[in-house]
Amino acid sequence: MARSTSGESLMSRVVRIYEAFGSEHRAVTLTELAQRSDLPLATASRLVSELIEHGWLYRDAQRRVCVGVRMWELVSRAAPTVGLREAAVPIMADLHAAVGHHVQLAVLQDREVLYIERLSASRAIRNRVRVAGRLPLHATSSGLVLLAHSPSGVQEMALSRPLRALTPRTITDPVALRSALSEVRRTGVAYCPGFVDECATGIAVPVRGSGNQVVAALSVLVPHDLAARRVIPVLRSAGCDISSSLAGGTTLHGIA
Amino acid sequence: MARSTSGESLMSRVVRIYEAFGSEHRAVTLTELAQRSDLPLATASRLVSELIEHGWLYRDAQRRVCVGVRMWELVSRAAPTVGLREAAVPIMADLHAAVGHHVQLAVLQDREVLYIERLSASRAIRNRVRVAGRLPLHATSSGLVLLAHSPSGVQEMALSRPLRALTPRTITDPVALRSALSEVRRTGVAYCPGFVDECATGIAVPVRGSGNQVVAALSVLVPHDLAARRVIPVLRSAGCDISSSLAGGTTLHGIA
Repeated sequence: MARSTSGESLMSRVVRIYEAFGSEHRAVTLTELAQRSDLPLATASRLVSELIEHGWLYRDAQRRVCVGVRMWELVSRAAPTVGLREAAVPIMADLHAAVGHHVQLAVLQDREVLYIERLSASRAIRNRVRVAGRLPLHATSSGLVLLAHSPSGVQEMALSRPLRALTPRTITDPVALRSALSEVRRTGVAYCPGFVDECATGIAVPVRGSGNQVVAALSVLVPHDLAARRVIPVLRSAGCDISSSLAGGTTLHGIA
Repeated sequence: MARSTSGESLMSRVVRIYEAFGSEHRAVTLTELAQRSDLPLATASRLVSELIEHGWLYRDAQRRVCVGVRMWELVSRAAPTVGLREAAVPIMADLHAAVGHHVQLAVLQDREVLYIERLSASRAIRNRVRVAGRLPLHATSSGLVLLAHSPSGVQEMALSRPLRALTPRTITDPVALRSALSEVRRTGVAYCPGFVDECATGIAVPVRGSGNQVVAALSVLVPHDLAARRVIPVLRSAGCDISSSLAGGTTLHGIA
């Protein structure tokens, strides 16, 4: 692999360029991009030019640099999340029609919750979840489901880290978190009123793959009121339907 | 940019590796990957190892190579389709609840229809559309909408190419296609019974960006029967709602 005089490989520099983009930085000037990826301007400029040639980057009308549609297409058609998404979205759409607000699908990635799909109603409550966005495991209903069914090493790691409060209702005590995980395993549902946003209740259930292991969490985000628990039966049923669909043979790659 | 002895840049070889994946090739052996990307096995092996280190590729339990979740995440959070998708999905979800079957969002890319979102019901009719998949412009309702509002150069190019039939009902005569495009501009809707699949009717309307130009097509795929036309009013209304949401300031990058 080609290396710069600093010994860093070309691919590492390309990866840093893509890490410089984000949901708040979808279009950046070349100077910003060089700064955010910590690369000399000349290096960033040369890499950006070649990535533009391949359609992996794009310059908008203001000459800001953006991720290219061609790269999105290559990654999206073969992404490891595709099989899970294809099994889940039709069932999520039916669930969304019944529940409204937000229906979400998440996986465990690098000890965080990574959201891979979200369906929202046009007048739904506010939601901090973004597709391809992350939230902490201990603070979300999806995270509790994923953590409750993780290997004990992952659970111990999560319990030993500082548990940051997103609201006064987020679980921040390791003893309370351990007890919540046990409750999730016993009842098959994580019920999290006000954990991420005081006005919203997150509720999640596990999605199981063909080997019966938990591969994802299906969740809803609804207004924080007494009626929130009413959605649990339809959510459970949708989680089972996605699991049945996956048991039918969809292979999941790279989801862990 | 580092070049191999053949004069090809490293980045070109990386791009070829990703082009070797596809919806039918999500997990491939290293040998298959080298063949499909036309690279020497040793080169493919070296590149794959480094891409795995960055989480851009992944090896599954059978040691097959797959696109990595980390790469999907980097691309998805900043993709040029994100703004359009965020404006559209809540409205698509409401439309899906009303219409069932399939609701789709597509853009024009490299003179083809590129589908960027699809919501489907669990018992919906068969659909050849895939997210990040492509279909020909002349054969689909979304393609007719996108083509009808393209610059005349793009239209003339489409009219001068062979128009392949996907079913006996696909438009294959340039004169008939020109007339259909004019009808789409006049009525604001493309109605395509049996063009892609004889059992299904595709219906599409334009989605306009902040400058009032057509940036996408919103479509439904419903069973091919007399009731299909009934969905047109709710589809039109959803198309207008997405356009209004985009007029509110969402910036679209790289969509053309």
